[in-house]
This record gives sequence, structure tokens and C-alpha cells, in this order.
Amino acid sequence: MKNDPKELLDRAKQSNRVSLAKLLSITERGGEKALQLTKLAFYQQKDSYLVGITGAPGAGKSTLANGLITEVRKRALEVAVLAVDPSSPFSGGAILGDRVRMQGHSSDSGVYIRSMATRGHLGGLALAVPDAARVLSAVGFPYVLLETVGVGQVEVEIVESADTTIVVVTPGWGDSVQANKAGLMEIADIFVINKADRDGVRDTRRDIETMLEMSDKNSWIPPVIESVASKGDGVDEVFEAVCSHRNYLQESGQGLKIKEIRLVNELKKIVEAQIDMRIDQVLSDPKFHLQQQKLMQGEIDPYTLATELVGLLFQN
Amino acid sequence: MKNDPKELLDRAKQSNRVSLAKLLSITERGGEKALQLTKLAFYQQKDSYLVGITGAPGAGKSTLANGLITEVRKRALEVAVLAVDPSSPFSGGAILGDRVRMQGHSSDSGVYIRSMATRGHLGGLALAVPDAARVLSAVGFPYVLLETVGVGQVEVEIVESADTTIVVVTPGWGDSVQANKAGLMEIADIFVINKADRDGVRDTRRDIETMLEMSDKNSWIPPVIESVASKGDGVDEVFEAVCSHRNYLQESGQGLKIKEIRLVNELKKIVEAQIDMRIDQVLSDPKFHLQQQKLMQGEIDPYTLATELVGLLFQN
Repeated sequence: MKNDPKELLDRAKQSNRVSLAKLLSITERGGEKALQLTKLAFYQQKDSYLVGITGAPGAGKSTLANGLITEVRKRALEVAVLAVDPSSPFSGGAILGDRVRMQGHSSDSGVYIRSMATRGHLGGLALAVPDAARVLSAVGFPYVLLETVGVGQVEVEIVESADTTIVVVTPGWGDSVQANKAGLMEIADIFVINKADRDGVRDTRRDIETMLEMSDKNSWIPPVIESVASKGDGVDEVFEAVCSHRNYLQESGQGLKIKEIRLVNELKKIVEAQIDMRIDQVLSDPKFHLQQQKLMQGEIDPYTLATELVGLLFQN
Repeated sequence: MKNDPKELLDRAKQSNRVSLAKLLSITERGGEKALQLTKLAFYQQKDSYLVGITGAPGAGKSTLANGLITEVRKRALEVAVLAVDPSSPFSGGAILGDRVRMQGHSSDSGVYIRSMATRGHLGGLALAVPDAARVLSAVGFPYVLLETVGVGQVEVEIVESADTTIVVVTPGWGDSVQANKAGLMEIADIFVINKADRDGVRDTRRDIETMLEMSDKNSWIPPVIESVASKGDGVDEVFEAVCSHRNYLQESGQGLKIKEIRLVNELKKIVEAQIDMRIDQVLSDPKFHLQQQKLMQGEIDPYTLATELVGLLFQN
């Protein structure tokens, strides 16, 4: 079969980028074929390292990603970038622009850049992204960069599947991420103050360090690195910090613990998504519409009806 | 029995406020007793009207609520206020202060003010609040005011159970609610520009009206009312708008449609909460720990395991 996941995966492993693009489209679309692919990829995963990059729009995430690509390529390793935009049902807008900006690497066959949006995947991007990362791992990329557009709740959730998470801020970052500062403090393994040639770097650093002191991070203390990614300044230091964090995860055993928590969370999300689907089926059943009328007329209360519904679900 | 929901409910109907307070504590705590109470209250509901008041902290929601209490009391009707703080596991902080501010009505036995926090109720405040509103309805309050502390996602979700939702803003509101402006536009049945003796009222009004023109509200166009609630100015107009909206809901048939959507949403939340509980039970089962190890070792993929888990859930 032409678009059979197994064959596509085999071809993608032989550096066939067209096949890889088709695979990731299958993952985006979701459904039976995506499931088949995910399972194949899961058992063929290689030792791939997932680096998440998040931060407010305009902080310079793509420019930093660009610099990190260069660092990985210096070591003659292949790298893939997944650029994720939860706000858009289609790839486009900001992220498309960012893709173009990363095109300095477009002639380099060791670099694969792909933007990703949610289309039909069960559970949305929170489940589609780890699936896509597994495809890239099975294909053999030793490094995968995961970039989000903003710092919303969904984006933080997505970046949680990364091994190392870089939070990119700029001097005077306070306002731009106010709504989710605590969430960012929690997920950051590395802080980068980008555009560090601007005023306010010292205040920003003090701000971050004060918050880090108050938080309960114990064994790994996130470094705060200054960079001017557009000039390439500080990017090597960021990459070194990624390597240090990777070593820390391995030596402390934290890496395994985190992997376990992450897998169990993913499992829960899959179970919830599967059950939600069944709930929707039961709710759209004509038998249920009768009960719904009784609910409206006050003849049955929602808790009793819920118990009935759960009973119906568990019968099938 | 001393704290039997049925007896407490009977006493609360005879204006026994201590019994009412006990009932609402039962609802907050959740569990079997709360369930029993909810069912009792559901079948004894009276024609009670739920008015939601939301807006950024400091917009003057409590002061407005205070004014609305006065309006209801002018009509010799009883009124209850539920002040809800999703950010706090206990009643306290801002809301406690607000309660004190409402104490102008403390000697009036026709007014009942209660702050509410989530304690143990299955599904949290999103389910506890409609339950509490039903208790107040069964007890016989023709008006219930529902006040939230802020404008976060949870608070918007809570206020969705109201019949009429008032969104309180102040001149120059833009910044304080930036993160959730669209959400507020969607839920508002009435806009109040409070503290309208300050600069910027015209800009704020234009801002709201422009957004309303862009939105797809068709049959009911939310009025924009200016008030200085601290001086009592404009509060009567707000109350009249509540009455107009109530008439509109009744005459257009929208009220019934909204009630249906709301009940079905509540039902879905109850079903999800019940199933989440079962998922947690299965996940903590020793049999599952074996499977979890296989997951970690890459011997079973999360999708296959999820299907197994769902199978387990549906057996019980």
C-alpha cells in the first residue's frame, strides 16, 4: 500500500523526508491509521532527546531554536523541530513566519522542520505531540526541538512532554507572561534571558532568581543564561546547559522517574479521551433523549441520571 | 437524626438560618450526604432566579451586589448571596472582606450571605455551586446572587450556571481582564461600567460596544449600564436590566433552551467526575502496577494499555 504507515516508516528511516512528512500528517489527522503508526513508532523508538522551548510571543524562541540547530549540527547529529500552535486549527500565522526564519537550514538535509496543528487527533495536541515525537525518535533523530507559540495552559501542558524545557524571556518579561508566571517557573529547567543587549537584564535576572529561591526546586537549580540569539551570542552556553541537564537526569535517576510520570499522565489522557468518546455516543443515543426530557421536567435529577449513564457506558 | 439533610432542609424552609448554613456546608464537603441533599433539593426546587456577577478584582462586584440586595428587598423579596472563591480551599481573603462590606444587610433576616469554597465536592465548584443554588431555591429564595472573585476560566465556568450574568468592568478595564476578554464577552448578558465617575467611561463604552458588534449575539443585545455602586447610582437600572433579561428569556423560549444546555453540561461533568474516580481506582490497583512497569520498559504501548484499562473499567 502506498501510504501504509509501516512502509512510510521504513522509507522515512532511510532519510526519505516526503515519507516523514506523510507520517506526521497521519499523526495530526488522528484516527485508526494514526493509532497504528503510534504503536509501530513506540516499539521502534530510539534514544532521542526532546528539548522544549517556550516563552511569550516575540521572546525569540525561533531564533534560539535556530541557534540550537547549529549547535547540534556542529556535532554532526541530525535534528528535527516541531513547531506547535494550539491556537490555530491549521499550521499558519506566526509559526509559518518562524519556519521561514529557520530556513537558514533549509538546504541542510540533517535538519527537519515541521509545524504542527491539531486536526483530528483524539485528545488534541497534548496527545498528538508525544506521538509525533515518537515518530521522529523511531526515524532516528537524536535531537528533537519542540517549540510553542505562546505560554498558555495548553502550551505548558504540551511542553511537559519534553526532557529539558527552556523558558525564554526578555528583559522586562513580567507583563508578557504575568498570567502564567507560576506555571512557567514550575516547568523551566533552563531560563534564557534573550535580547540581553536591552535594558533591564539585571532586574529580570533578580526577578527570576528570587522566584527560584521561593520555589521548591531542590536538586536541579535551573540556570539563568543571557543570550542575544539573533547574533548567536550565548547559544552555545544554552546548549551546554541542555547537556548538563541531560546528564543530571541520567545520573540522579530523575530522568526515569519523570519518564514514568509522563507516561502515566499520557495513559490517563488516552483513557479519558476514549471514555469521552463513549460518553458522547451514549448522550446522542435516542434512548438518552427521553431521559433528558425527564431531566428538564424535573422528574429525574442529574446525579441519578449520571449513575444510569455510567451504568450504560459500562455495559457496552 | 440531628444533621439529617431532610430535617435540616425542612427547618431551613422555616427560615432557620443555622440549618441552612449546615446544609451548605454539607454541599461544600461533598460525599454521600451531599448527594442525598442534592437529590432532595432538586425535586423541591422553586422558581428561583440566579444572577451571576463577575469581573476583575476591585471592579466593585460586592458593592454592586450590595445595591442589588437593596433593590430586591424594596420588592419585599428574600435574597441569598453565594460568594465563590475558586483560588482558595477555604473561605477567606478577599471574599471574607466583601462579606463584611455587605453587612449593611446583616440585621435583615430576608438576606442570607454565604461565601463558598471547594472542600471535597466531586467535580469541585463547577458542580458544588449549582448544587448550592438548588438548596437555596428549595429553601425558597426567589433571588440568588452568585459573585465570583475574579475572571479566570473556572470563574467563568461557575457563572455559566446563572440565568443572567452581569459583567462588571471599570473605566480602563482593558488591562485587568485582557487574558479573558473574549470569554467575558461571551457570557455577559449585562455590562456594568462601575466607578463611572472616573475618566475613560466613553472609551470603555465604545470598546465594549465595538466588541459586541463583532460578536454573534443576535436576539439579546447586552445593555451597557454606567453605575457608581458605592453611591447607589445606576443600581436600579442594573436591576431593571436583570428583569428585562429575565422577561426576554421567558418570552423568547431561550430560557428553556439555556436550561437544557446547562443541565446536560452538568450531567456530563458529573459523569466525567464519576468516571475519573473509577480511573484513579484502577490506576492504583496492584495489577495495574505490573502493566505500568511494562509500559516503562517499552513492552506495551500506552494506547494498547489504555484500551485494556478501559476494558477493566467497564467490567466492574
